Amino acid sequence: MNGLNAIMKLFMPKDRIFFELFEKVAVNVGQMSKQLKEVVAEPDFDKRGALIKVIEDMEHTNDEYTHNIFTELERNFITPFDREDIHALATSLDDIADYIYASAKKINFYRVNPNETGMHKFADLIDQGCQQIQYAVTELRNMKNMRRITDALVKINSIENQADDVFDMSIEHLFATEPDAKEVIKKREIYQVMEIATDKCEDASNVIESILIKYA
Amino acid sequence: MNGLNAIMKLFMPKDRIFFELFEKVAVNVGQMSKQLKEVVAEPDFDKRGALIKVIEDMEHTNDEYTHNIFTELERNFITPFDREDIHALATSLDDIADYIYASAKKINFYRVNPNETGMHKFADLIDQGCQQIQYAVTELRNMKNMRRITDALVKINSIENQADDVFDMSIEHLFATEPDAKEVIKKREIYQVMEIATDKCEDASNVIESILIKYA
Amino acid sequence: MNGLNAIMKLFMPKDRIFFELFEKVAVNVGQMSKQLKEVVAEPDFDKRGALIKVIEDMEHTNDEYTHNIFTELERNFITPFDREDIHALATSLDDIADYIYASAKKINFYRVNPNETGMHKFADLIDQGCQQIQYAVTELRNMKNMRRITDALVKINSIENQADDVFDMSIEHLFATEPDAKEVIKKREIYQVMEIATDKCEDASNVIESILIKYA
Repeated sequence: MNGLNAIMKLFMPKDRIFFELFEKVAVNVGQMSKQLKEVVAEPDFDKRGALIKVIEDMEHTNDEYTHNIFTELERNFITPFDREDIHALATSLDDIADYIYASAKKINFYRVNPNETGMHKFADLIDQGCQQIQYAVTELRNMKNMRRITDALVKINSIENQADDVFDMSIEHLFATEPDAKEVIKKREIYQVMEIATDKCEDASNVIESILIKYA
Repeated sequence: MNGLNAIMKLFMPKDRIFFELFEKVAVNVGQMSKQLKEVVAEPDFDKRGALIKVIEDMEHTNDEYTHNIFTELERNFITPFDREDIHALATSLDDIADYIYASAKKINFYRVNPNETGMHKFADLIDQGCQQIQYAVTELRNMKNMRRITDALVKINSIENQADDVFDMSIEHLFATEPDAKEVIKKREIYQVMEIATDKCEDASNVIESILIKYA
Repeated sequence: MNGLNAIMKLFMPKDRIFFELFEKVAVNVGQMSKQLKEVVAEPDFDKRGALIKVIEDMEHTNDEYTHNIFTELERNFITPFDREDIHALATSLDDIADYIYASAKKINFYRVNPNETGMHKFADLIDQGCQQIQYAVTELRNMKNMRRITDALVKINSIENQADDVFDMSIEHLFATEPDAKEVIKKREIYQVMEIATDKCEDASNVIESILIKYA
C-alpha cells in the first residue's frame, strides 16, 4: 500500500483535476441549498419563480461538472481513489443537486405556499447537510485533517435523522390539518423530495467514509 | 484491444445467441409498445381488457427471453460485451416490458378512461422510444452503422425529455380539472408508470452507449 | 474449484463468524415477522404501540448484526462466499427488517385500524416468507440439504406472487369502499410498504440462489 501510495503521488498532478471538479460540485451544491432557503422564505409566487430559475441554472452547471468527472474517469487510468468511489461520489453529489432543484421546482409547480414550519426546517437541514458535504469534499484533497472530515460525516448522519423526524412531524401535521386531499398529495410529495435530498447527502457521506477507510 | 478483438471473433459463433436473444427482446418490446397505443385508443372496457391480455402474454414471453440471456451468461465464458453490460441491457429491456405492461394493466384495474391527451402522448412517446431501441439493438450485432445507433440514442434521450414535459403537463391538468382526489391518485400513478417506461428506455440507451464506448 | 474448496475449508473457522451472524439476522427477522402478525391482530392503539416498540428494538438489533457483518467483511480477506454476495445478502435481510418495522410503525403513525383482510393477509405472507428465509439461511452453513434450500426459495417466490395479488385485491377494495381520499393515501402507503417487505424476501432469496449456483 505504501508503494502504491508513492506511485499515486507521482501521478498526482494529473489527478488534481478530480479534486478540482469535486470541489466545484460541492461549492455549487452548497450554493443551491442556500438558494433553496431563499425560495421557501419568499412569499411572492413570481419572485419565488425567479429564485427557482437560478437553482435550475445551477443544476445545469452541476450536470456539466458531473459529466466532466465521468469524462476524466474514462480518460485517466490512474485516479486518486477507486474508480467506483469517484463514480459513486459524483453520482450522489449530482443526486443532491437534482433533489434540491426538484424541491424548489415542485413548490411553484403545485402552487404551494412554502411559508410553513416543515418546509423551512427541511430547507435548513438540507443546507446544513450541504455545508458539511462541502467541508468534507474540500478536505479530501490532502486528507491532512481527517478529524474535520469525520466530524462532517457524523453531522450529516445526524442531519439525516433530524430530517426523518421533520418528515414524520410534517406528514402528521398535514393529515391532521389539511382537509383537501389534493393538497395533501402535493405537499406530501414536496416533503418526500426534500427528505430524499438529505438522504442523498448521507449517500455522499457514506462514499466519503468508504474512501477514508481505504486510503487514510 | 486488437488482439482481444481477434480472439473475440474466433468465439463469435457461440456468442451469436446473445445477439439473437437481444433482437427477440427488442422486437417483442417494440410490439408491446404498439399494443399499448391500441390500449389507450380503445374506449370499450372489455375490448381494452382483451388488448391488455395480449400485452400480458408478451410480457411473459419477454421474461422467458430475459431468463435465457441470463442462463447463457452463466454458461458462456466468452461474451460479445462485458458480462455486466449484457446483464444491464437485458435488465433494462425487461424493465421497459414490465412498465409497459404495468401501464396497460393499471388502466383497466383502476377503471380509468385512457381517452385523454396525456395518456395518448405517453403511449406515443413510449412507442417511439421502443422503435429506436429496436434499431439500436439490431445494429449492435455488426456495429457497422455506428451513426444509426448514436442517432437512435440521441432520439431516445429527446423522447425522455419530452416525456418529462408530458408528465408535468398531465399532472398540472389533472390537479386543475379533476375534483375527485381518488381519481387524482389513480391517474397520477398511471402517468408515473408511463413516465418510468420512458426512463427505462433511456437506461437501456445508456447501457448501449457504454457498450459503444468500450468496443467501437 | 476443488483446490479452492480445499483452501476455503482451511480457513473455515475464521469464516464461521459470517454464518453465525447471518443466522442471528435470520432468526431476528423471523421474530420480527411474528411480532408484525401480533401488531395487525391487536385492536387497541396503545397495546399495539407497545408491540410496535418491540419491533423497533428488534430492528435496531438487526442494524447492529448487519454492521458486524460489514465490519467482518472489511477485516477478512477470505470469505465463505463472494464478498458481493455477502454484502447483498446482509443488505437484503436488513431491508426486510426495515420494511417490517416501517409497516408496523405506519399503522399507528397514521392511526389506521389494521383489523382488515388485506393487512392480515400481508402480515401472514411476510411471516411465511421470513420463516422460509430462516430455513434457507440456516442451511447455507453446511450446504448438505440443498433440496431444503431450493424448496424454501421456490416457496418465497410463490409468496411474493401471492403478495402481488393481495396488493391488487386490497387496493381495489380500498378505492371501492373508502370514501375519504386521505384514508386511501394512508392505507395505500401501508400496503405498499408491506408488499415491498415481501419483495425484499425475494431479493434475499435471489442472492441465496446465486450463492447456490456458484458454490454448490
